[in-house]
Parts: sequence; structure tokens; C-alpha cells
Amino acid sequence: MSFQSYSEVRAPSRDGILAAVDRVANVATRTPLLPLPSAAGGIWIKAESLQLGGAFKLRGAYNRLAQIPEEQRAAGVVAFSSGNHAQGVARAARILGMPAVIVMPADAPAVKLQATKALGADIVTYDRHRESREQIAADLAAQKGAVLVPSFDDVDVIEGQGTTGIEMAEQLGRSPARVAIPCGGGGLSAGIALALPEAEIIVVEPEGWDDMTRSLALGEIVPVADDAPVTSCDALQTKRVAERTFSALAAAGARGLSVAEEEIRVAMRYAFAQGLVVEPGGAVALAAWLAGKLPPIDGDTVLVCSGSNVDPRAFAEVIG
Amino acid sequence: MSFQSYSEVRAPSRDGILAAVDRVANVATRTPLLPLPSAAGGIWIKAESLQLGGAFKLRGAYNRLAQIPEEQRAAGVVAFSSGNHAQGVARAARILGMPAVIVMPADAPAVKLQATKALGADIVTYDRHRESREQIAADLAAQKGAVLVPSFDDVDVIEGQGTTGIEMAEQLGRSPARVAIPCGGGGLSAGIALALPEAEIIVVEPEGWDDMTRSLALGEIVPVADDAPVTSCDALQTKRVAERTFSALAAAGARGLSVAEEEIRVAMRYAFAQGLVVEPGGAVALAAWLAGKLPPIDGDTVLVCSGSNVDPRAFAEVIG
Repeated sequence: MSFQSYSEVRAPSRDGILAAVDRVANVATRTPLLPLPSAAGGIWIKAESLQLGGAFKLRGAYNRLAQIPEEQRAAGVVAFSSGNHAQGVARAARILGMPAVIVMPADAPAVKLQATKALGADIVTYDRHRESREQIAADLAAQKGAVLVPSFDDVDVIEGQGTTGIEMAEQLGRSPARVAIPCGGGGLSAGIALALPEAEIIVVEPEGWDDMTRSLALGEIVPVADDAPVTSCDALQTKRVAERTFSALAAAGARGLSVAEEEIRVAMRYAFAQGLVVEPGGAVALAAWLAGKLPPIDGDTVLVCSGSNVDPRAFAEVIG
Repeated sequence: MSFQSYSEVRAPSRDGILAAVDRVANVATRTPLLPLPSAAGGIWIKAESLQLGGAFKLRGAYNRLAQIPEEQRAAGVVAFSSGNHAQGVARAARILGMPAVIVMPADAPAVKLQATKALGADIVTYDRHRESREQIAADLAAQKGAVLVPSFDDVDVIEGQGTTGIEMAEQLGRSPARVAIPCGGGGLSAGIALALPEAEIIVVEPEGWDDMTRSLALGEIVPVADDAPVTSCDALQTKRVAERTFSALAAAGARGLSVAEEEIRVAMRYAFAQGLVVEPGGAVALAAWLAGKLPPIDGDTVLVCSGSNVDPRAFAEVIG
């Protein structure tokens, strides 16, 4: 299978992110940077949970799709995703008038399946335990002559996600001293690390799914263990990060940490009390702060809340 | 009882609102203006639900308290409120180092009682069915020599709330063509009407509590009927509006409409799907739009979502 990208020959860069800013600003919401009221000051939530489609994914997807040459657009795009990237690609494709086929696990949250369909994409479901989504997506792309859009292992996608970092620095009027970021495959984290070279970058993962954390500590990529525990963070269930995201984070001196399921629920309740719906995977950086895992520093800390797509019943159970 | 204000001799004005903008910007969050993704365009949510304290009330309270002369601040402030104004006054008082006593109904949402207490205010509870909060508050204020801060019938309070209107026009880059606003006593609505003289102003109330709507239609103030139905909108249970708010809205040519309980629940679920927690009273303008009660027009329509302070269990029941 190939992740052929027009930009494959180059590494993601800050210049690429700056070039993406204007492109992405045409379609994505400038999400608010909200002060954390209970903190002494200097702690902020970057609410990508309020992004169109309920997660940051539109940034990367649109930055990728908008760079597909006109003559190739009619063949459309194919992506695989448990939900947030699916919605990002579906929305970007709709904006650009391109057909989109999204390969999603049959047990993805209903809210994510429905929203993707509502954006006009064709959904192909598969059995997470018996089928390879990579193979299904590659076959579909080859069959249609469509472009396969990876959820994180792509230069344009990483650079699109990186616009989140440029935006928060503009909103603060300076670079934050530290950014804590939910990490699945690392596209958002790598993009922000490249966007904010002066900031300390901390990736946050659910316990047992802390493969980026361990990879950064070891200096080489290690996958999630086969016996990883069940996690509520459906958006962060990436079994193995990519060389591209890993090396950008390693070069930035990023480190990682993990949070427990109960710490994530505490963060979801806290966000609720501030008026924000945050899905489990989107709440891990806030959870790390609330659990006291981020020591006080001088300067601003930004906690990225990366998504809000959670089934109402699951959310009601956490807060009720 | 007297609502004596330093600004009582003048009417609230756009100039007063412009003077309040810098004052309020020092302490209040610039809340996001978010596009409604399902609409064709030009429909926005002004998310005052993300304001510090979970509602717009900090704007008016701070604008009032900041204009109390230094030598009178030590005696503090007294306010009565079912919750959102309570939090606004408590937070403004804490910022200015003033003591605050808040008179709240014993059956106010627990989340509002706790949050007000957490801000350092003294809470005095009363029985909504047997006691007069106006009398209790007036007695307390007289006893302490403290300033009584009304929740809507005050020039500085109205002008502070009006900063919401200036802000949305700045965010749009132009005046919206229409603003729909949740209305209890009318402080926010009157402030926005004064701030945006070019906009059509629509106040929205729960069914049976549409006294401002009827007052505007009749050209004179009429109170809520004694047999008004139970409403989930605890923030909008004002029995009678004030001459000040009524006349500002009447002069602006504002009109009103009402929404049903089920329409409010639909709006809360819709906001949830966009990542926003909105309390029942804060969701009525969005409810009016979703129910098709606001006909299409040229130009931008802003729906103010005015608060997010809802008990988790009540919220879980609506969305779950």
C-alpha cells in the first residue's frame, strides 16, 4: 500500500504550515483560546472541539485536498478513520466538490458515522477484528484512481494540523511556553511542534496506549502492546505512530505522559462545567493538567481539547 | 426599595456601551462567534455560554462594580439572582476585592449555588414561594451600607451587557442584520439593541413567560401571568420587565417570540452536537431558529446562546 503524496519528497516544515494558514482559514473556524478559570492564570484551553466537524481534522484534510490538482479531483478521495478524520475529509471534499469514500469500523461511534454520511461521503464499514482497513482503502483508491488521504502520515496533513499552533500564538500575542496535546498518530502534535519551535511540547495519551510517549523516551518507534487495555478514547487508538510524526516530535525534544480513564472522566466533567463538550480522546491534555501531571512553569500553558464527537449516551453517563 | 445607581439620571446609550467595552474587555472573555454548520451560511452562534462564570452576566456586573467609587467599595455589594447574575456579581466583586452577599432561592440549581460560593460570595437563601428576595436584599444592603446591584434594571448593567453586541459586530466585520436573544428581564436584549441600531432585534422567551414579547406588541409592560407554566428556563423566570429595558427595546422596534419546552430540548441537543453545553434559558434563541420561527433574511443572523449553567443530571436527561 502506498501513501503517495505530492509532498512526499519533503519533510513537514514551519514554512509549509505558514503557507497552510491562509488556505485553512478560508474554511476552518478560528477556535477560541479560553482561560482556565480555576487556575492562577496562564493556563488556556484551545477548543478545537468547536472546530467544524467537532475536531481539528478539517485543517489537515483541507490542506491536503486543496493541493490536489484540478484534473485529479473528479476521481475523488478515499480515507480510513474511526471518525474525526472521516468527517474532516468528508467536509473538505464537499467544499471542493470532490467525491469521498470513507472506510470506517462498523463499531465506530454512531454519532461519527452519521455525521460523516450527512456530509455526503460514501461510507464503507469493516470489521476491526478481522479486516484490514488499509487494504480496503488501498483497493478502493486503486479501483477509482482516487487519492488516499492518510489521517496523520502525510506532509500536507501534518502542516494543516500545525495551523492550530500558529493560531494559538496569534491569539496569545506570543508563543506559549508549553503545549499539551492529545496524541493518536501524532499529526496534530507534530504540526504544533513544528509551528511553535520555542514551546515545550508534551503529548498526552491514554494509559496503555502511550506508544508515542515510550517511543520518544526510547528514541525509536515502538507500537502499542497487543494486550492494551480498553480505552474510552476511540480517537487515540492508533497502534503505531509514523516515522514522520515521531521524528518531528523527537527533533522538537517533545516528551509524553499518560492519563487514566478516571482522570479523563474528571476532565470531561470539568470541561462540561465550563460549557464545553469534549470527547474522551479530546480531553486527555486537560486531564493531565487537572491530575497535576504538568508542573507549574513560567509563561503560558495551552491544553488542546481536540474533539467533541461523543455519543450522547456515553457523555450523559460520564457527567450524569 | 430603591435601585439607586450612580447613573440613574441618564438612560443607557450606545456611547455608554462603547465606554464599557475597554472596561469589560479587561476581565471578560471575548466569546467566540461560531458558524452554524447546518445552515446555508450567515447564521452564527454568539457563545456567551463560554463566558467566565458560564453566562454573559460578568459583563454587566463588572461594568457596574468598576464604577463604584473607591471609598464605597469596602462596604461591598448585594445582589439577588437565581444564579447567573449571582456568579457575575461574585466574580466581579472578587476581581475588585469587594465583599459580596448574594440572595439566592433555596431551590436554585445546585451548580449555580456552588459556583457562586466558590467565588467567595456569602450566600443567603430564601423560600421563593413565601419570601421577598427584593426585601431581603434591600434590608441587607441598608444594614451594610452596601450597593445593591440589580440584575437588569440598571444603566451600567445594561451597558455592560451591550458590549456583547459591539463584540459580535467586530467579529463579523459588520453589523449583523438580525440578532435573536434570550430574554428574562431584558438587560442583555436592551444592551444589544442599543449597541446595534442597524440590526433587527428579536427577543425570545419560553412559552407562558413571554411577557416582554407581549409588552412589545401591546406597547406597555404586562407581567407574566400568575398561572404561568413550569419552565426549564430558570434563568428567564422574570415576572415583570423594567421600564428601562422595555423602552430601549420598544424604541429599537424589537419584537418577540416564544418557544416550547420540546423546542428548547432540541436546541440543547443540537448545541451539544456542536460541542457546546447550553442551559435551557440560554438555548431559546437557537431553539427559535431550529424551529423555523426566524424567516430567512439577507445578511447575518446571530443567535445568542447566553449561558451554560445547567445541573449535570438535568443535562444528561435532555441529551441521553
